[in-house]
Amino acid sequence: MIYLDNAATTRPDGEAVASAAQFLEDDFFNPSALYKAGFAAHKRVEAARKNILSLIADPAKFDLVFTSCGSESDNQALFSCARRGNFVTTEGEHAAIFSSAEELKKRGVEVRFAKIGPDGTVDCDDLLRLVDDKTSLVSVIHVGNETGAVNDIASIAASVKKKNPRAFFHSDGVQAFGKLPFRLTADIDFYSVSAHKIGGVRGIAGLFRNRNKNLFPLICGGGQEGGLRSGTENTFGIMQFEAAARKKFSRLIPDLERMRFYNDYFCGALDKEIFQILSPENGSPYILSVSAKGLRGEVLQHMADDRGVLIGTGSACSSRHRYSRVILACGYGEKIADGVIRISFSPETTEEECKEGAALINECARELAKRMN
Amino acid sequence: MIYLDNAATTRPDGEAVASAAQFLEDDFFNPSALYKAGFAAHKRVEAARKNILSLIADPAKFDLVFTSCGSESDNQALFSCARRGNFVTTEGEHAAIFSSAEELKKRGVEVRFAKIGPDGTVDCDDLLRLVDDKTSLVSVIHVGNETGAVNDIASIAASVKKKNPRAFFHSDGVQAFGKLPFRLTADIDFYSVSAHKIGGVRGIAGLFRNRNKNLFPLICGGGQEGGLRSGTENTFGIMQFEAAARKKFSRLIPDLERMRFYNDYFCGALDKEIFQILSPENGSPYILSVSAKGLRGEVLQHMADDRGVLIGTGSACSSRHRYSRVILACGYGEKIADGVIRISFSPETTEEECKEGAALINECARELAKRMN
Repeated sequence: MIYLDNAATTRPDGEAVASAAQFLEDDFFNPSALYKAGFAAHKRVEAARKNILSLIADPAKFDLVFTSCGSESDNQALFSCARRGNFVTTEGEHAAIFSSAEELKKRGVEVRFAKIGPDGTVDCDDLLRLVDDKTSLVSVIHVGNETGAVNDIASIAASVKKKNPRAFFHSDGVQAFGKLPFRLTADIDFYSVSAHKIGGVRGIAGLFRNRNKNLFPLICGGGQEGGLRSGTENTFGIMQFEAAARKKFSRLIPDLERMRFYNDYFCGALDKEIFQILSPENGSPYILSVSAKGLRGEVLQHMADDRGVLIGTGSACSSRHRYSRVILACGYGEKIADGVIRISFSPETTEEECKEGAALINECARELAKRMN
Repeated sequence: MIYLDNAATTRPDGEAVASAAQFLEDDFFNPSALYKAGFAAHKRVEAARKNILSLIADPAKFDLVFTSCGSESDNQALFSCARRGNFVTTEGEHAAIFSSAEELKKRGVEVRFAKIGPDGTVDCDDLLRLVDDKTSLVSVIHVGNETGAVNDIASIAASVKKKNPRAFFHSDGVQAFGKLPFRLTADIDFYSVSAHKIGGVRGIAGLFRNRNKNLFPLICGGGQEGGLRSGTENTFGIMQFEAAARKKFSRLIPDLERMRFYNDYFCGALDKEIFQILSPENGSPYILSVSAKGLRGEVLQHMADDRGVLIGTGSACSSRHRYSRVILACGYGEKIADGVIRISFSPETTEEECKEGAALINECARELAKRMN
């Protein structure tokens, strides 16, 4: 089996699982408990928090709130910050922002979507035009989960703050964290990350928070996470996340170069008569979105599946919709949108798998094209 | 080490971890993915959902929404159902309901607290008096996390529905599920449970939902969990929860009898000159709340800790407050409230540990009492 759907989820890193296993066994204590074993668990959680923080931020300026998933992190930032006026975001967001924006509308907050271009990145002029003194929150995805398009969020955040210094700036960094070299700047207030996209387990994620910016909790209760996120701390998840993240960051640049090699290889190997590359050249090499023109991506996906190659069609999360709203927003027609497949890599992917995978995908597409004629 | 703080968290069941480990390894696929391995993960999640459902409900009448923790389940039910009018709850609730009620007040919902008696159970007459035709939600904890007091929620729900059939009824069942024999009745609309209180891992929990009752999602996004809770499904957590829950239910009555024996033993063994039993005789035997009159529970906890006995002081979650609001609400004064310790058992607890634990706690209390004189 050749697994090329790593943007949907990655295999939990075995070393990271092993290093955290003690928290499923002897060190299972509740970090809020006041005896020594509880306090030891608390200290380990705080050390993990600081270590993960340090990977992309200055712990003196940023805090990290552990949440249960990337969607929760996005929802936490959005429902806390966009309580009045208008919320400005982009047409290229993940469903966790897009669907939450629909909910915001029901609550009487005006939602404004900035256009995205054919390369999947946000039209910055359009975005800034939408920001005014009534804007409470701006949210721009860092790396598009469908196209791999990279938004220059540091620069966008700076421009937003220039126009409205009181507006909060949030970015969904789920497909960027641990993959692209990046550090949080002072203009970025909140940044969502998720463990299971980088070899972490599911059930744990985080929201980076500028220490000067307040949050209203989404989940109230015992007051864990400095009162910002209640619920008994998921110590195993946190420790496994820490180990996976540190490993990922320790190899960030060589991994990135290898992903670039895989991505380039695929772009070159896919049959140009059939496939149109949708991902931008300067996007994240972890994600390659292509369209098999005139064919149905879902059918192609099933054929590849039968041959042992696992690929995505747009976002796994929005798989209920025939056409990806993000691909349509890029300006592509339904014919292109219908044929979209998403190939996504991880450092576990081998060169051999890329070669075989590309050959098998070509084979399937040619067979399908023949059937259609 | 003698662990007697199982109401705070339990050691994850090793067999259940082993049986679910494949979902951290080869079967890590995203259940929303459309290839066969994704669909297989989806089918396993649905089977686990039905199996957990069947333990306390008729799957034709109830659904189960997987969440990340008991606090999330409580918040999900509360913020969805208590959107207008008034919210009626009790003085004996867990912080996940109590703190959320404070948030509701800020949102303009009237919150009414029914009194609890010295035995920790809600005063049903007072509760029903508070319910009127403006009541949108009633929430009554099933087993009090501090006292072990058991509320007869089936009968309370029936009375509430008689007075206002349109009011939703929710119960926090976190300390009851897998411990007391119980099945959901038609009058109960929502019921919160958590994995890590019964040998499950953290990061996974559930909200049972009467299929006739709608929920507004707390976390929006890709539309997982029938649109009610977005975020990639935590397959390892779900499978481990299923295994732990099935094991717990398969031994529910013998375990309950053993806990009753432990609880009775402790009540008899603790020095009557020092300790006053706060938990009611007909409460859950899993939890024993006592007060070391005139002493500080926290100091006693630390002394016991030094001798290798781990006990709680009220709820681990509310450990920031000196006095437990629930113990005060029972009608006890500050002197009693100051001395509270919570001893909580699990099927892993041995008879030997109970004997040694009780002896060591007596020893610490006598030493502390001597120091105070």
